[in-house]
Amino acid sequence: MNAGSILILPGDGIGPEVMAEVRRIISWYGDKRGLEFEVSEDLVGGAAYDVHGVPLADETMEKAQGVDAVLLGAVGGPKYDDLDFSVKPERGLLRLRKEMDLYANLRPAQCFDALADFSSLKREVVAGLDIMIVRELTSGVYFGEPRGIFEENGERVGINTQRYTESEIARVARSAFELARKRGNKVCSMEKANVMESGILWREVVQKVHDEEYPDVELSHMYADAGGMQLTRWPKQFDVIVTDNLFGDLLSDVAAMLTGSLGMLPSASLGAPMANGRPKALYEPVHGSAPDITGQGKANPIACILSFAMALRYSFDQGEEADRLEKAVEKVLADGVRTPDLLNEEGKTPASTRDMGDAILAAL
Amino acid sequence: MNAGSILILPGDGIGPEVMAEVRRIISWYGDKRGLEFEVSEDLVGGAAYDVHGVPLADETMEKAQGVDAVLLGAVGGPKYDDLDFSVKPERGLLRLRKEMDLYANLRPAQCFDALADFSSLKREVVAGLDIMIVRELTSGVYFGEPRGIFEENGERVGINTQRYTESEIARVARSAFELARKRGNKVCSMEKANVMESGILWREVVQKVHDEEYPDVELSHMYADAGGMQLTRWPKQFDVIVTDNLFGDLLSDVAAMLTGSLGMLPSASLGAPMANGRPKALYEPVHGSAPDITGQGKANPIACILSFAMALRYSFDQGEEADRLEKAVEKVLADGVRTPDLLNEEGKTPASTRDMGDAILAAL
Ligand SMILES: CC(C)[C@H](C(=O)O)[C@@H](O)C(=O)O
Ligand SMILES: CC(C)[C@H](C(=O)O)[C@@H](O)C(=O)O
Repeated sequence: MNAGSILILPGDGIGPEVMAEVRRIISWYGDKRGLEFEVSEDLVGGAAYDVHGVPLADETMEKAQGVDAVLLGAVGGPKYDDLDFSVKPERGLLRLRKEMDLYANLRPAQCFDALADFSSLKREVVAGLDIMIVRELTSGVYFGEPRGIFEENGERVGINTQRYTESEIARVARSAFELARKRGNKVCSMEKANVMESGILWREVVQKVHDEEYPDVELSHMYADAGGMQLTRWPKQFDVIVTDNLFGDLLSDVAAMLTGSLGMLPSASLGAPMANGRPKALYEPVHGSAPDITGQGKANPIACILSFAMALRYSFDQGEEADRLEKAVEKVLADGVRTPDLLNEEGKTPASTRDMGDAILAAL
Repeated sequence: MNAGSILILPGDGIGPEVMAEVRRIISWYGDKRGLEFEVSEDLVGGAAYDVHGVPLADETMEKAQGVDAVLLGAVGGPKYDDLDFSVKPERGLLRLRKEMDLYANLRPAQCFDALADFSSLKREVVAGLDIMIVRELTSGVYFGEPRGIFEENGERVGINTQRYTESEIARVARSAFELARKRGNKVCSMEKANVMESGILWREVVQKVHDEEYPDVELSHMYADAGGMQLTRWPKQFDVIVTDNLFGDLLSDVAAMLTGSLGMLPSASLGAPMANGRPKALYEPVHGSAPDITGQGKANPIACILSFAMALRYSFDQGEEADRLEKAVEKVLADGVRTPDLLNEEGKTPASTRDMGDAILAAL
């Protein structure tokens, strides 16, 4: 059956390498499970800049709007560091998020049992960890106006604006509560309501959405700085965390690092339902483009593969197939297959990106 | 000799309890080391609100402007949670920071050897850790205008403004470089220049101050989210970190928690030199008012005592006396004296706040 359409944007650095393994997994689903995806591919980030002079061409933006799911590898690299702000690789990603209105960024921070010793935290603090950070992704200080560098009283001043409307807060709060109901039924909302008025509104709206629509979910509030502390102290106290774009950027990176599984973590960015009932959606690994290991077959494709598993679950309503893929990954890890990022003992021969893909296909 | 003037603002919760021990230390310096401080005391936070209806009275503000050093305990508590934003306990603290123009907030994150096992991180990751976070404290999103909750298109919108001028960035960068020269000679500056124009200006100005005035100091730049990751992965890579008000709030809390010594960490907030050459200065523990243990003699006074040690060093030019006090604290810890927050074995009898003060006085 035609399972739906996917636009692949491999991007820069290790993006194309890890995406090559995802393509093989996608083909496997067509061959073996009868899920035939219509796959197209295009450029984003520095790769797009090299060809079009912009990090995301209008045609690519249009394509992204027309598919069921976008899979993105990674953007950026030292080659593009000195580009003007407006054409930096990151702007391509930010444009996708904004124009597709992907307001709910789901970032699971999960500690894989086989990898618990990789964390800088003690095993008992992270083993079995499974939290979900829901980060608002289309508003806040990332997009608020006015913004820029201006001249004032004879010197320059850099300005950005944090801005949240009630409806922007309410919709991402709903995403968090919905997710919580399918998990541990607990949401912790984080802001700086003690210092920022936008945080006061955030807290109030989250509480209101809770009281009116999700009274069955346990809700707590925490200042974002205390949240960062608690994440490092005892992360297992959390189930779902909901927070704004900027706090979410920081806190989800801290949470990801805790797990010791940075090369393993996927993410989903979801928007409103399209005409066919599926949400606008973009999936990408949490890790970056890793220019230092690009082209050496050292990249771990698991984060990108698990991002496709999230696509199966959230875009294609194939929860069981997503489980199958996640279990295959767990099995391969339990079997001891390790890309270089997952090895700390000398003497062991690491698996290449392709070896890891092979192992996962075999486990499937 | 008259060593200088100190205004004590014990504040709320455990503030008064820990400050009582600091007062004894201050007296000891008068009696035994001939350093006689002129000490006065006043109200801040909820305690001030209860009496004056505001979290910092104008007379108190004036007194703070007139002394060599302000020592603050902690502010806030559940009793004040529902107060209007403008009179919340925190506003008292923020007013002190802003009106005294205390732009450089020094937050050492130090792991005490005797306490390394208290961290949620592995011993080898944190043992011996000694980093200094320099957080800009009087600008950024904490104070930028416009701010507030407004009505727009039939709904409310919460707005805050991130704002940094070149001179605001340059002066805190200088503080960081000066400190680095007395330490490991390395500064890492953190922002989100990939997303925020204020971050672009931040990076540019820090680089310029470096190139023109501190070329001998090693300077690097990191995105704040990656900074949060690196702090949890391998914090010992850092010496001095310089960052803005909001990122500094989060990152310094994460760094503090890493050390496992949260009840132990002091801070100094410094401004421009006064007529007598001493900087405007406020010293306070990193921990909060801890309402859950207030009035039970359980609070650890060390963070507040070490804040006074910072005052000896930065306000009163008594580096050797500061060393003496810090060594006394280390000795007491090595001897096994432990307030409840420093005990994880059952069966041991914890020291009270007063016991800890006694032990430190004895060690002096
Ligand atoms: C690449 C960058 C623009 C991006 C962000 O800041 O959102 C990244 O850090 C992320 O978290 O996805
Ligand atoms: C109490 C609060 C206003 C304060 C802040 O956000 O600066 C605190 O978190 C701190 O870090 O000193």
